[in-house]
Amino acid sequence: MALRFGFAPTEEYKLVVLVRNDLKMGKGKIAAQVGHAAVDCALYAEKKDKKAFDAWYNGGQAKVVLKVDSLEELTRYMQEARSYGLHTSMITDAGRTQIEPGSVTCLGIGPASKSDIDKVTGDLKML
Amino acid sequence: MALRFGFAPTEEYKLVVLVRNDLKMGKGKIAAQVGHAAVDCALYAEKKDKKAFDAWYNGGQAKVVLKVDSLEELTRYMQEARSYGLHTSMITDAGRTQIEPGSVTCLGIGPASKSDIDKVTGDLKML
Repeated sequence: MALRFGFAPTEEYKLVVLVRNDLKMGKGKIAAQVGHAAVDCALYAEKKDKKAFDAWYNGGQAKVVLKVDSLEELTRYMQEARSYGLHTSMITDAGRTQIEPGSVTCLGIGPASKSDIDKVTGDLKML
Repeated sequence: MALRFGFAPTEEYKLVVLVRNDLKMGKGKIAAQVGHAAVDCALYAEKKDKKAFDAWYNGGQAKVVLKVDSLEELTRYMQEARSYGLHTSMITDAGRTQIEPGSVTCLGIGPASKSDIDKVTGDLKML
């Protein structure tokens, strides 16, 4: 069965992943890191915030990939997201390929309502 | 808490995502599609194949992103994976950006043991 994603949900919920654009990661590496963040956020919400999970899951599972330019910037967005009570997953890679071991590569936020997430990341550009 | 991924697991389990390299997708778009596949495979395994899920989850949640050059090739790998009893998630994007609506973008396989997955995708290159 082909699964379909990305349709506009009735209640707009989304999961965003902020990727460090300053690291020299290829597109496959970036995709794997975003996969880590998305899976972690989804599994967390499924267990701890079923309402948000269901709204997001049934509404198209929107995932948006944004870019930041440094670890400091990523950390600042994490702190701001947490100050709004949003779930965050910061991803650290073992660094077996391409980057230094232990590098923080990306940050997942949500899933949560579009309006809540946009308060924090509304100014960021798509990767 | 910073989450750490990618360490070598005791039992080597992995989730692979095959991405269509013939589509004109940017790196952020690819990452979102891989996110769809990874989340779908993880949620499926958590419910339907807890043993594989636990081995994969506790063993570093390895995710590997591979490339194929056409929809035909992607479909062939899907059929072969299924013939071995592996779980597959084929992802179709709504196509609001960059690509035609309804395009099949990628295929998640697993999580499953490295040896089982390599029987199917062992000849593919990393994206």
